[in-house]
Amino acid sequence: MEVDEVVCLPRLSRVAVCGGTHGNELSGVYLVRELLKEKKVTEKKEEDEEEKPVSVLMVLANPWAMQQCRRYVNTDLNRCFTHAALSGPLSDMAPYEMVRSRELNAMLGPKGSPEAVDLVCDLHNTTANMGLCLIAYSDCDWICLHIFRHLQRTMPDIPLRYIHFDVSKKESYSLDSVGKHGFAMEIGPQPHGVVRSNIYTAMKSGVQHMLDWVRFFNSGTIFEGGFVDVFTMVKHIDYPRDSETHNIMAAIHPQLQDRDFCLLQPGDPLFQTFSGETLRYKGKEPLYPFFINECAYYEKGIAISLARKRRVMIPAVRVQTEQEQQADQQGFASEEEE
Amino acid sequence: MEVDEVVCLPRLSRVAVCGGTHGNELSGVYLVRELLKEKKVTEKKEEDEEEKPVSVLMVLANPWAMQQCRRYVNTDLNRCFTHAALSGPLSDMAPYEMVRSRELNAMLGPKGSPEAVDLVCDLHNTTANMGLCLIAYSDCDWICLHIFRHLQRTMPDIPLRYIHFDVSKKESYSLDSVGKHGFAMEIGPQPHGVVRSNIYTAMKSGVQHMLDWVRFFNSGTIFEGGFVDVFTMVKHIDYPRDSETHNIMAAIHPQLQDRDFCLLQPGDPLFQTFSGETLRYKGKEPLYPFFINECAYYEKGIAISLARKRRVMIPAVRVQTEQEQQADQQGFASEEEE
Repeated sequence: MEVDEVVCLPRLSRVAVCGGTHGNELSGVYLVRELLKEKKVTEKKEEDEEEKPVSVLMVLANPWAMQQCRRYVNTDLNRCFTHAALSGPLSDMAPYEMVRSRELNAMLGPKGSPEAVDLVCDLHNTTANMGLCLIAYSDCDWICLHIFRHLQRTMPDIPLRYIHFDVSKKESYSLDSVGKHGFAMEIGPQPHGVVRSNIYTAMKSGVQHMLDWVRFFNSGTIFEGGFVDVFTMVKHIDYPRDSETHNIMAAIHPQLQDRDFCLLQPGDPLFQTFSGETLRYKGKEPLYPFFINECAYYEKGIAISLARKRRVMIPAVRVQTEQEQQADQQGFASEEEE
Repeated sequence: MEVDEVVCLPRLSRVAVCGGTHGNELSGVYLVRELLKEKKVTEKKEEDEEEKPVSVLMVLANPWAMQQCRRYVNTDLNRCFTHAALSGPLSDMAPYEMVRSRELNAMLGPKGSPEAVDLVCDLHNTTANMGLCLIAYSDCDWICLHIFRHLQRTMPDIPLRYIHFDVSKKESYSLDSVGKHGFAMEIGPQPHGVVRSNIYTAMKSGVQHMLDWVRFFNSGTIFEGGFVDVFTMVKHIDYPRDSETHNIMAAIHPQLQDRDFCLLQPGDPLFQTFSGETLRYKGKEPLYPFFINECAYYEKGIAISLARKRRVMIPAVRVQTEQEQQADQQGFASEEEE
């Protein structure tokens, strides 16, 4: 591969690893606590090294919700990071999470500014059988996609998928949208309020390999281009509900339960009502289900989400040299003119 | 089998099936709602029949907690049914569940009185891989043990166990202790706040077979004696915790996770710390673990419970005739004198 085919991207100097954005998703809570303990040791080692280390910020995002082992106290923190929510007026009566989102934006952002951290990795769990997923707002963020490919290669025992929510930067609502690059690392199945050792270990590996990739990248490694399967969210389906009480009247069908990312065909079983009847998928297009029976989405009216799969070509990437970065920052000469 | 070997027990005229005692254990919530719908149809049918039907009360035990999809609002309702808790003074500031437990005791009890319902079946879910368990305070309640044997025979596809908590009637604390007979029907694994179709269906079958047994029993069927394996709770083990923060420092070991009722030997792996170390079982006696990694027990300081298994002989049973029952109630002549 020739050099002119390689996309050169700025150094990733500051990375944030966040846990506890949802206070009852415990892998991230205990992993960030553990990494904070280990960090003291790591920092000492890195001081001895000559190269400029990556600055890794470990953040417990919603300590009050964590304390109560609940998803949130007043409102879902991970929906509080739109530009509108971060910039509007804030009353004394504002929900706790609206206040906390501004603190986090001050710490890791401001969102959309040059001061924002280079990469946010926000740790989540799901009750759905989704394996390890990176969830991002972009299908052309080469940093996120290359990290995903690196995890796929280094963690062959765990099913890995890249999910794309097609939402504009302005409308993006989650904590990871505060960084220049960002994604949620979502791992399941795990009940909320529970730590399962296998899920914790997978998350720990995922974070370690992600940080390894960042260090390789910063040190000048060229990562080859290639193809990545991207699942782009198309729509959600809610449970059948009683029109008066709004109570659900069916559960996910046993033939669909735990079959995240297995193609759902028109006519396939979708729900089983509490009286035993089977309800089928009436869509015309075969789509890939995910977040099947996620606990936290009952209240959001989501029984499953459906995605289209596409193969995306990603280019080779390497870090910009210091000269390139300076030129880039100053808006000066292009590489060819130098 | 000769008649004098058969234990004669009073008719079970009134049975209560309770769901939502813990508001986020959803199989029971949706099953009781469904049974309430179906009951209208059933009652019509039964009116046409000649025989006196069983009166089945369907109860949603903690509606406020259900509404919030939480285990409880102020305190665990299923610990509020001791004689002390039910009979002490009650202030205006009493926790919601302390008030609710008295309402339920008035509806289904009073506990320990002749007016109490004959049988309480209280529906629960666990995040532990326990299959279907009946949990009771007695290892010599022939009604509970015969119902258990009936479920074992009629539901061969589901692992069934009988768990015995060796607590006196006075100290017994759970809703099912309000009935003359009672047990919790505990089914898992299912995350709290989630309905899984397979778990719902198992619970529905369990309740139907339990009610079938009661009807067979009332109609005079003689049930043969035999043996039942009873798991008697011996002790609980808590997670290793940080002495200052009280935070857990380990998760259930991956080799133990999901292996409820598989004999735990001294030296077997118990926990894996968040830094990766294995901690082993230091007990001297091999015991049977259950409630492994139950979500709700983190706050109670229980990582696993351990039981001893015993084989209990249960006698043949049949319902008392009306004459026997009258004689029994009046404290008159024994069967032999008649």
